[in-house]
Amino acid sequence: MRQSKLFGKTEKTDRVDVSSISHRLLVKGGFIRESVAGRYYFLPLGLRVHQKITNIIKEEMDKAGAQEMVSPILHPLELWQESNRDNAGNFGLMMIEDRRGGKFALGGTAEEMFVDVVRKFQISYKDLPFNIYQFSNKFRDELRARGGLLRVREFVMKDAYSFDRDENDFLHTYKLMSETYENIFSRMGLKANKVLADNGYIGGEYCHEYIVDCEAGESAYLVSEDESYKAHEDVAQVELPHCNPDEPIRDMQTIEQPEWVKDMADNQKHYGEPLWRYLKNVVYKRIDTGEIIIVTIRGDLEVNKAKLEKLVGAIELLEPATDDDLRSIGTKPGFVHAWGLQATYVADNSLKTVTNFIGGQKTESTDTTFVNYGRDFSHPIEADVVLAKPGQINSDVKKISLRRGIEVGNIFQLGTHYTDKMQGATFRDKDGQMKPFYMGCYGIGVGRAMATVVELYNDEKGIKWPESIAPFAVHLVSLQNDDPEIKDWADGLYSTLVSRGVDVLYDDRELRAGEKFADSDLLGIPIRIVAGRKAKEQKKYEVVYRSSGELFYWSEEELLNNLLGG
Amino acid sequence: MRQSKLFGKTEKTDRVDVSSISHRLLVKGGFIRESVAGRYYFLPLGLRVHQKITNIIKEEMDKAGAQEMVSPILHPLELWQESNRDNAGNFGLMMIEDRRGGKFALGGTAEEMFVDVVRKFQISYKDLPFNIYQFSNKFRDELRARGGLLRVREFVMKDAYSFDRDENDFLHTYKLMSETYENIFSRMGLKANKVLADNGYIGGEYCHEYIVDCEAGESAYLVSEDESYKAHEDVAQVELPHCNPDEPIRDMQTIEQPEWVKDMADNQKHYGEPLWRYLKNVVYKRIDTGEIIIVTIRGDLEVNKAKLEKLVGAIELLEPATDDDLRSIGTKPGFVHAWGLQATYVADNSLKTVTNFIGGQKTESTDTTFVNYGRDFSHPIEADVVLAKPGQINSDVKKISLRRGIEVGNIFQLGTHYTDKMQGATFRDKDGQMKPFYMGCYGIGVGRAMATVVELYNDEKGIKWPESIAPFAVHLVSLQNDDPEIKDWADGLYSTLVSRGVDVLYDDRELRAGEKFADSDLLGIPIRIVAGRKAKEQKKYEVVYRSSGELFYWSEEELLNNLLGG
Repeated sequence: MRQSKLFGKTEKTDRVDVSSISHRLLVKGGFIRESVAGRYYFLPLGLRVHQKITNIIKEEMDKAGAQEMVSPILHPLELWQESNRDNAGNFGLMMIEDRRGGKFALGGTAEEMFVDVVRKFQISYKDLPFNIYQFSNKFRDELRARGGLLRVREFVMKDAYSFDRDENDFLHTYKLMSETYENIFSRMGLKANKVLADNGYIGGEYCHEYIVDCEAGESAYLVSEDESYKAHEDVAQVELPHCNPDEPIRDMQTIEQPEWVKDMADNQKHYGEPLWRYLKNVVYKRIDTGEIIIVTIRGDLEVNKAKLEKLVGAIELLEPATDDDLRSIGTKPGFVHAWGLQATYVADNSLKTVTNFIGGQKTESTDTTFVNYGRDFSHPIEADVVLAKPGQINSDVKKISLRRGIEVGNIFQLGTHYTDKMQGATFRDKDGQMKPFYMGCYGIGVGRAMATVVELYNDEKGIKWPESIAPFAVHLVSLQNDDPEIKDWADGLYSTLVSRGVDVLYDDRELRAGEKFADSDLLGIPIRIVAGRKAKEQKKYEVVYRSSGELFYWSEEELLNNLLGG
Repeated sequence: MRQSKLFGKTEKTDRVDVSSISHRLLVKGGFIRESVAGRYYFLPLGLRVHQKITNIIKEEMDKAGAQEMVSPILHPLELWQESNRDNAGNFGLMMIEDRRGGKFALGGTAEEMFVDVVRKFQISYKDLPFNIYQFSNKFRDELRARGGLLRVREFVMKDAYSFDRDENDFLHTYKLMSETYENIFSRMGLKANKVLADNGYIGGEYCHEYIVDCEAGESAYLVSEDESYKAHEDVAQVELPHCNPDEPIRDMQTIEQPEWVKDMADNQKHYGEPLWRYLKNVVYKRIDTGEIIIVTIRGDLEVNKAKLEKLVGAIELLEPATDDDLRSIGTKPGFVHAWGLQATYVADNSLKTVTNFIGGQKTESTDTTFVNYGRDFSHPIEADVVLAKPGQINSDVKKISLRRGIEVGNIFQLGTHYTDKMQGATFRDKDGQMKPFYMGCYGIGVGRAMATVVELYNDEKGIKWPESIAPFAVHLVSLQNDDPEIKDWADGLYSTLVSRGVDVLYDDRELRAGEKFADSDLLGIPIRIVAGRKAKEQKKYEVVYRSSGELFYWSEEELLNNLLGG
C-alpha cells in the first residue's frame, strides 16, 4: 500500500479530549476516528489491526473445534422476556420497535439468540458437545464512554456459546476455552490473568475475567504472591478480624454531639477514634421499584455494589440514593439512621467485628454510642458486601495485593440458567429423556483488546505493534524522492517486496525525512526500511526494529532473506 | 470438517412457508434459519458461502484501489438532517434514542457517515481520488420481507463511497467500479446486466443497477435485442404514437351512463371501445403531508410510482390512496374526476395521444365523452409517468423486450448531492479554493447475491454451488462406516486430504447411503468422493461432479493430482 494513497492521516499534535494512551495514539496515528462519544470509525490502518486480531481469535476458536456462524443484530424482545432479561436496568440494553409493532433489543450479548437457533433443531446427545460463535456488533447504552476503545457504546465482540450434555462434559469445554483464551491473548502479545469474577447480568454460577494489568484499566482484582489466588474485587470474600475483642461491652447511650459532625472525617475529628469505631450507612435505590436499601457497615470500609446487587437480586438495578430519595424516607444526608427508617436494611458482616460502635441514630444535636450489633439493632439481611482490600483476605492466602487492569475477555459457566427458562431448549439423552443443555459462554471485545495492546506497547514516539497484529509487517520509507532517479529506485524495491509477498506500507510521500520518521514511529510498524540516496549509493538499507530499536545495514539480498525468513 | 460435528442439519421435507427456490434450498440444506421474518441466522455452512463472497468482493475492490474501513452502525441523526434524509418515508429507516437523549438512525446506507469521516481530515486535490468501503450490517424496515434472503430487513452490505475532484475524474472511477462489479459477479457465476435505473432515495443524477435475470426477481427492465439499451422500468422513457390521429375532434358531452359502470372493464363492456379510449385516474397520498395526488392517464396504461415520486419530489413518500383518502376530497372509488377535485393533478403525456376520451366526470348516472386534453381540461404538471412496456419504447431502439431479475448491486453517481448540503465536505483544489467532493457510491448485498446464485444453480435435488463460493470444495462421503476397518480407512483419506490443504467436508455420519447421497446433492458441494467398501477393495474412488454430473473412478494418486491441480 502506498501511503500517499492511504485514507486517514496522522496528526502532529495531541488532542486535548483523549483520556488514555491508546486513545491518543490511535487517533493521532490515523487508526480510528470518533463519530460521537463511544462510537468509532476504524480507518483502513485501524481495520487492518482489527482484522488481524479477529483472525487470531478465529484460528484459535476453530482449532478448539468451535464453529463460526452469525445471528441477527436485532433480537426479538420476546426472547429476552423468556429469560427475564428484558428489564435490563443499567446493563444498557437498547430497544427499538419496527413499523409493524415488532419489538427488538439491539444485541448486547446473544445467549437467547443462540439458544433459540439451537432449539430449532432436534438435537441428540450424540450431537453434543458443540460450541458456536460469532463476530458481531454489540451495543451498550453506557452512561459513560471513556478511554477511546476501552469503553465504548458499539463494538465488535466474539461471543461463543457452548452446549454440553452435563456439568462433567462442560468442565472439559470450559477448560478448553480457558486454554484457547490464553493462546489468543498470548498471540497478540498480552499476558492476561484469569480472575474469578462476578457474572452480573449474564447469570450462571461462576465466571472468570481475563484481565491485562494496566493502569488505564477499570477492573481491580486481588492476587496472592504466588498468583494461585486471583479474584475480582466484586467477588473477593473478606475475612475480618475483630477490631477490639478485649473491650468490655457497655450500655448504649444517647450523647450530645455538635451539629457539624456529619461525615466520617468529622467523627474522627470530634471523637479522635479510628474509623472502624463508627457506624456507616450507605443508601441505594432500586431503579425498577424505587425501593430504598440501607447498608450498615463499619466506618473504615466501602460497600461493593456488585456484591450488594447480587445479594438482593437486583443485578444492574441499584443506584446511589439522591438527596430526594433520602427525603422520601424522612431523612437527609448525614442523618441516615442505622435502624428504624422505612427501608430495607442490610448488615455487612463487619458489624460483628466491633464492640461499642459510635453512631446510628444521629439527630441535630445527639447521637448514640456504645452501640452493639445484635444487641441494640440487627438487620434481616447479613452478608459480606465489603469492597475487598488486600489486608482483609483470608489469612491462609499470603501476601495479597491489589492490581488494576483491563478486562479483555471473559468466560462464563451458564449451566441451565437459560435452557431451564427457555422452552424446548433440550436434547434427547441416551435414556430417551429430554434434558436442558448445559451451557457456557465466552466473550472477547476486539477493539478493547486492540486498545489494550497499545496501552502496553508504546513509547513517547508512538505505538510499537507486536508483529502478529501490526497493520503492516514492514514500513518502507523513501527519502529524497523528489529526485526521480531515487524515486524510481525506491519504487523498484517496493515492487520487489510486494511481489515477494511482504506486507508493506510504502511511504512515498514527498515530505521531509523528519516528518516521515516521526510518522513511522507513531504508526509503529515493526520493521522500518529506509530507501534514500545514501542507501542507493551504498547498496545498504538502514533497517530499524521499532520495538527493540535494533539497527542493521543490509544489502537487498540480506533484506529479502531476513524478511522472508529464508 | 466432520459432518457429524457440524452445527446445522438438513431437513427431509420442504417447508410450506418458503417463497423462492433459494429460500427453500438454503433452509433445507441447513445454510440459514429464520429468526423472525426478514432476519436470518447464517449457520456455519451458510456463513462459509457468505464469507467466500465477501472475500471475492474485497479482493476485487482492493484490486481497484479501494480501501476497506468501517463506520459505526448507529448514525447520529443530525447527519441525516444535514442531508435532509431524516424524513425517510418508505425507505424504512429505523431510528433509536439512547438514554442520554442522543438520536440515531440504524444505518440503511452510509453516505452521510462517510462524508462525515472524510470532512474530519484536511484533504487536498493531491489526496484525490480515493474510494473507501465497508462491509457492515444494514437495516431496512421493509413492510414486506420475502423470498428468504432476497428481501430482508437486516443484511450485510458492501458499500463504497468514492471521492473525486470533479466530474471528469469521477467518470474514470465510475467506469472502474463498473468493471470491478462485472468481475465480482462473474467470479461468483452471475451474469449481471448493467441497467440504467432510478436513484430514488440515494440522490444524484444517474445510477445503474446490476440485474441477474431470474423469475424470482422483483426488478423489471427493458432491453433491446442487441442489449445496447437496458433501462429499468422505473426510468425507461416511453414514446407513444397517437391512437386515433385521423378522428375529428368533437364537442364534449355529458351522457347518461348506468350506475354499474365503474372500472375499465365495465367501460369496455358498456361502450365496446378499446381501453385507450377511457380516461383513468390513479390516486396517491403523500405520507408526510397528506397531500392527495391524482394522475390522469390513458386507460390502457399503468402509472410507475417511482417516476411519479421523482416528478413530484416525494421519493419513498407516496402510497396508494385509501377509500378514506378519497372521501376526504369528497369522492369515492370509481368516481374520481379527471379535474375539479381538491388535489394535485398530474397529466401523463399519454393524454395527448387520444382524441375524444370517454370519462372524466362520472356521477351516479352520467359521465362525459368526447373529452379532449388541453381543450376541456389541463393539468399543471405534465410528464411521462407511464410504466413502460416493450412496445412503447423509442422506435429507434428495435425489438425491445421486458425482463425480470434480481438486483444484486448498484452504482450511483452522487456528484455534489451530499457534499453541497453537508458543511465542510470540501477539499483544497490546485487553485487554493475549497470545493465540494464529487462523489459516487456502490453497493452489493452479500446475502442477496448468495441467494441469487442458488436461484440459478440448482436442480430438483438441491444446490449446485459454483466452485468459487462453495462452502467446501470437496464432499467426502463414507459408506459402510459402521465397519471399523472401513471407517479407519476413510478417516485416513480425510486426514490426507486435510493435510494436503483440500477444503473438505467429511460425511462421517452413520447413516444409510441413500440419505447421505441425498444430503450431498442438497448441499451442492462441487465434487463428491465416495469412500466405502467397494472403493477400498478396488482402490478406486467414485468421484462425481455435482454440476455436470460427470463420474470418474480415480486412484488416490489420480484423486490428489486432480484435486490439487498437480
